[in-house]
Amino acid sequence: MRKISENRCYGGIQGVYSHQSEACGVEMTFAVYLPPQAEQGPVPVLWYLSGLTCTHENAMTKGGFQCHAARHGVAIVFPDTSPRGDGVADDEAYDLGIGAGFYLNATQGPWEPHFRMYDYVLEELRGLVQESFPVTDRHGITGHSMGGHGALTIALRNPSRYQSLSAFSPIVNPSQSDWGRKQFSAYLGDDEATWAQHDASILLGESGWHGDILIDQGTDDQFIDLLRPQAFAEAASLRRQPTVLRLQKGYDHSYFFVATFAGDHVKWHADRLKAERP
Amino acid sequence: MRKISENRCYGGIQGVYSHQSEACGVEMTFAVYLPPQAEQGPVPVLWYLSGLTCTHENAMTKGGFQCHAARHGVAIVFPDTSPRGDGVADDEAYDLGIGAGFYLNATQGPWEPHFRMYDYVLEELRGLVQESFPVTDRHGITGHSMGGHGALTIALRNPSRYQSLSAFSPIVNPSQSDWGRKQFSAYLGDDEATWAQHDASILLGESGWHGDILIDQGTDDQFIDLLRPQAFAEAASLRRQPTVLRLQKGYDHSYFFVATFAGDHVKWHADRLKAERP
Repeated sequence: MRKISENRCYGGIQGVYSHQSEACGVEMTFAVYLPPQAEQGPVPVLWYLSGLTCTHENAMTKGGFQCHAARHGVAIVFPDTSPRGDGVADDEAYDLGIGAGFYLNATQGPWEPHFRMYDYVLEELRGLVQESFPVTDRHGITGHSMGGHGALTIALRNPSRYQSLSAFSPIVNPSQSDWGRKQFSAYLGDDEATWAQHDASILLGESGWHGDILIDQGTDDQFIDLLRPQAFAEAASLRRQPTVLRLQKGYDHSYFFVATFAGDHVKWHADRLKAERP
Repeated sequence: MRKISENRCYGGIQGVYSHQSEACGVEMTFAVYLPPQAEQGPVPVLWYLSGLTCTHENAMTKGGFQCHAARHGVAIVFPDTSPRGDGVADDEAYDLGIGAGFYLNATQGPWEPHFRMYDYVLEELRGLVQESFPVTDRHGITGHSMGGHGALTIALRNPSRYQSLSAFSPIVNPSQSDWGRKQFSAYLGDDEATWAQHDASILLGESGWHGDILIDQGTDDQFIDLLRPQAFAEAASLRRQPTVLRLQKGYDHSYFFVATFAGDHVKWHADRLKAERP
């Protein structure tokens, strides 16, 4: 692991690091915010998965999470959204290839060798964070847009690995959306049966979630038709899944929306991650 | 005035606008955050002047000010740091010309026609903000680095126009620093007598300030030798000027530092701007 930068921030450290990823076969960059409480002992971890076109940097600089993480004593990990660099396949569209990994393991060429963000986030980077930083084994996960999709699908498929779950304007029904069908077809192939395990609304309907789920969604989100919050709302209702879905009046899809509710999400996770274990 | 964007943020509106500037002779872009309280009636205004290489956008997206402005009911104005566009003189160095206006009125060619950020901030943009947004005539001013220099020098020369004053790692003694001598020489000419009115430490020593002043400065600031906080500290001490100078352990010059203390500065200004008038 190589240190790229460390800046003091709200009494803690905002670091940026890189490492040679086995899952993705390239060097990957990620950011970790350690709150001041980490100097006294291990702290729980909140994962923040970013949306289309982003790197580790966007939410780190524009989301305003550090303030809340320092208050509540939670570390935050900001992974990249795809492999990138020499030899990594790409597409000229902003929503396929680099910056658009969709948090799955591609099975189709030319994507299959590097696009393995599901394994990367769930296994490899988690292991690296766990061994390199003063953190506990209590993890929460959240994300924005494509990253909200990643957070929901990874957690729903691996409930024992995450103790808390939320999302900001997530893509919740990609198998029925142009933010999903095109990418799943490219990464996973045309057999739609393989897509279901990457569709949060289908996964929730099938298996539910052991805790409660917080979702914020702006009513003026310019991409709301692609996000399809109604599908998740229906699945949660039919499943009787404890869920807080907040349709926030007048907010759009930007980081101004994410920053506005960042504090609520960090507190949501901190309350659950720091609760007494059963 | 032309609207470029408006995003809901912490219950208020983060807007970006442009207008044809008479002072600078080009179209200028600026940002205004209006807190939710502005829907009920006019709110006081905090000016945030940015540092070298920045536009209106850096602090708007990375400073985390909106959260605190919404809490305290203060509008924030983020001007650009120089004129820019067709016909505006520039230099290949990052610290002269575009992005480096130093908040003065240039008297020397090729800068003189457009580089009039002093008049722009003090008079023209203030007038436009005052007539276009629901704000009171109570104004505070702050800034970072070159913007801290701008805040201090503009306020110290125009005490009746500002009711509160602070700065983040400001350039406080430019006439004795490589961040200052080069630029003053280019913009103002070689007669150093004309430089003194743009040197916060000299201005403070000569005239003081009617209120108290808050300055935050990181001890690990990579540019601290260019900022020369000791000069302002000496001037304040000799003048018996009510001042809070906080040397913040371990912080550098980045927006992570600015964001960490943004809340303290917004509260500092709000307390003074909303106080009963004498």
